[in-house]
Amino acid sequence: MSVNLRIPGPTPCPPEVLAAMSGQMINHRGPEFAALQERLTEKLKTYFLTSNDLYIISTSGTGVMETMVVNALSPGDRVLAVSIGAFGDRFGNIAETYGADVKRLNFEWGTAADPEAIRAELKKDASIKAVLVTHNETSTGVTNPLGEIAKVVKEQDRLIIVDAVSSLGSIKCPVDEWQLDFVGTGSQKGWMVPPGIAMVAVSERGWAAYKESKMRKFYFDLGKARDFAEKGQTPWTPTISCYYALDAAFHLLDQEGLQGLLDRHQRLADMTRAGIKNLGLKLFPQDERYASNTVTAISNPEGVDGSKLVKMCREEYGVVFSGGQAKLSGQIFRIGHLGMVNEDDISSALSAIEKALGALGYSSSGVAVTA
Amino acid sequence: MSVNLRIPGPTPCPPEVLAAMSGQMINHRGPEFAALQERLTEKLKTYFLTSNDLYIISTSGTGVMETMVVNALSPGDRVLAVSIGAFGDRFGNIAETYGADVKRLNFEWGTAADPEAIRAELKKDASIKAVLVTHNETSTGVTNPLGEIAKVVKEQDRLIIVDAVSSLGSIKCPVDEWQLDFVGTGSQKGWMVPPGIAMVAVSERGWAAYKESKMRKFYFDLGKARDFAEKGQTPWTPTISCYYALDAAFHLLDQEGLQGLLDRHQRLADMTRAGIKNLGLKLFPQDERYASNTVTAISNPEGVDGSKLVKMCREEYGVVFSGGQAKLSGQIFRIGHLGMVNEDDISSALSAIEKALGALGYSSSGVAVTA
Repeated sequence: MSVNLRIPGPTPCPPEVLAAMSGQMINHRGPEFAALQERLTEKLKTYFLTSNDLYIISTSGTGVMETMVVNALSPGDRVLAVSIGAFGDRFGNIAETYGADVKRLNFEWGTAADPEAIRAELKKDASIKAVLVTHNETSTGVTNPLGEIAKVVKEQDRLIIVDAVSSLGSIKCPVDEWQLDFVGTGSQKGWMVPPGIAMVAVSERGWAAYKESKMRKFYFDLGKARDFAEKGQTPWTPTISCYYALDAAFHLLDQEGLQGLLDRHQRLADMTRAGIKNLGLKLFPQDERYASNTVTAISNPEGVDGSKLVKMCREEYGVVFSGGQAKLSGQIFRIGHLGMVNEDDISSALSAIEKALGALGYSSSGVAVTA
Repeated sequence: MSVNLRIPGPTPCPPEVLAAMSGQMINHRGPEFAALQERLTEKLKTYFLTSNDLYIISTSGTGVMETMVVNALSPGDRVLAVSIGAFGDRFGNIAETYGADVKRLNFEWGTAADPEAIRAELKKDASIKAVLVTHNETSTGVTNPLGEIAKVVKEQDRLIIVDAVSSLGSIKCPVDEWQLDFVGTGSQKGWMVPPGIAMVAVSERGWAAYKESKMRKFYFDLGKARDFAEKGQTPWTPTISCYYALDAAFHLLDQEGLQGLLDRHQRLADMTRAGIKNLGLKLFPQDERYASNTVTAISNPEGVDGSKLVKMCREEYGVVFSGGQAKLSGQIFRIGHLGMVNEDDISSALSAIEKALGALGYSSSGVAVTA
């Protein structure tokens, strides 16, 4: 049985990308690696829509979140951590762990952040130096109106630090237009590459913050990344195979182009949401305008054990979904539709859910499961 | 021209290992990954010769050094940083970066650390809580007498934190017998796996230190690794492909067995050193008893530009060596002989050096380069 991995990352990778993963090792301090790093960095900037400095670092999504925090801030810095779910909470937790004075601005899980509420907080407290915000909240399937949020933050003249781990390249995120100071993503999301590298862009204002930043850092020190990039190197041994894979992925991504990628993610998300509603199920996001184009969160159907549903889809029908994370455990399940994904993948995912619901005896009020 | 990558990591990987790198992604929070992680962890313990807790983390060698420091120590802790080269210095730098009160015990580059000098420091200063020490110093090609050093540290009842990045699995390092509290290695060394994961073992005493440790950490927090390991997971998305590769590598490593690996590294290092001396060149380590079995450092021959030698070997003969690092830049070059390496690789490396020396007009005093 071939597996349809429909979790919000790691995403399945195309054969060309997987083949590239098996490239032989090279000297990471030699000319071949330097050329590869340069090529990938320049290419990434065209997807980030930025002329800011950009670095590839060898870590996960959480690692790039930590990187942004520790390079931007000092212990004691007042920070507004905007959260609409588990990853927003995590961003605040990282800042707190490193000694920031974190003001939490939490929105109900399933909703998007309200830019007006952010404006009010910033107006109220001039000491807030930076805003931490999640672009796409993977745990709830909600995308924040980042453009509007960034506008507010810039009006109020603060730093904006963005977790775009599960959005960049899949959901519109023009880094320069929105003036994002730090913005990070991970290879295992829309980039169709296995986990192992993350990418982060830093604005001029971001570098000014770096200069003042006193949070302790070594492995994640972007100043070291900058120094070594000048020699075509990374400060520490990089996950070379993922560089190869990203290089191969760009051959495919470029065929679609950024706008094509955004459109496809929109189309497949629309298809997923329509299919879910047709099955009589309920989207977890309260307002569909903010439902994510990379991951759909669905409330567990009444009377059905969500973990049984996920298990049956995996074991009987070869479709792998994610359950709920943190306080949503047991309340929702999630369908990833980012990276290498097409209409057939979504159809087979929806069909698996339909069959599992039938097997588990579920029939929604209005709609027969076989409809 | 096939390339003979003779740097001290990343090392070339066997075809079976590279093939495994191209495995399709799986859910890192599912049963398949849990089984893989469990299998690799148990297997690694047999190579570490330890029954301590052991974790695979997604980072480089420097990342695992930072992991050990921040999980063992608190700001202000008095630490003895034993250094015989660039990586020993780095270990101390990491500790200092995170606020430790670092007492440096530096030995001349090219020599090994003297256990008696370490004993004297520990006797003199009872406030020293931990000793940071490099097992195999990649920058100078010297292996410290870690067994003797560990004995001294334990006699004096301190924590010992060991960078075994380029030794474990290749050079004798029995973790339990030597009572090493924290010991870390990286996939891209003797394990024959691409860079992307590192492994760290923690003793009971190490965990007691962890409980008191106040250095700030999030991504590298081993307590989180421990909590998630209980569910068969990692706290953050792991570099899954390297797990596949390590699994494949163990099929090969197990055929040789740990003792077989140690013997092969000894044999090939002996062969390398003999060949270098036959060419009339001088080993950088002052006392050959401490010359490393994973990397040979060679003083640049008089009258020959070392960087030209390295460049010619790479461009003309397809053999890639490393130059000198940090203050040894321009003074030495280095041959890696760890991981996937055999007699032919060493012969071709020595032959390339011989040819390049000839082309660069070098002839040693006593020995003709064609001898």
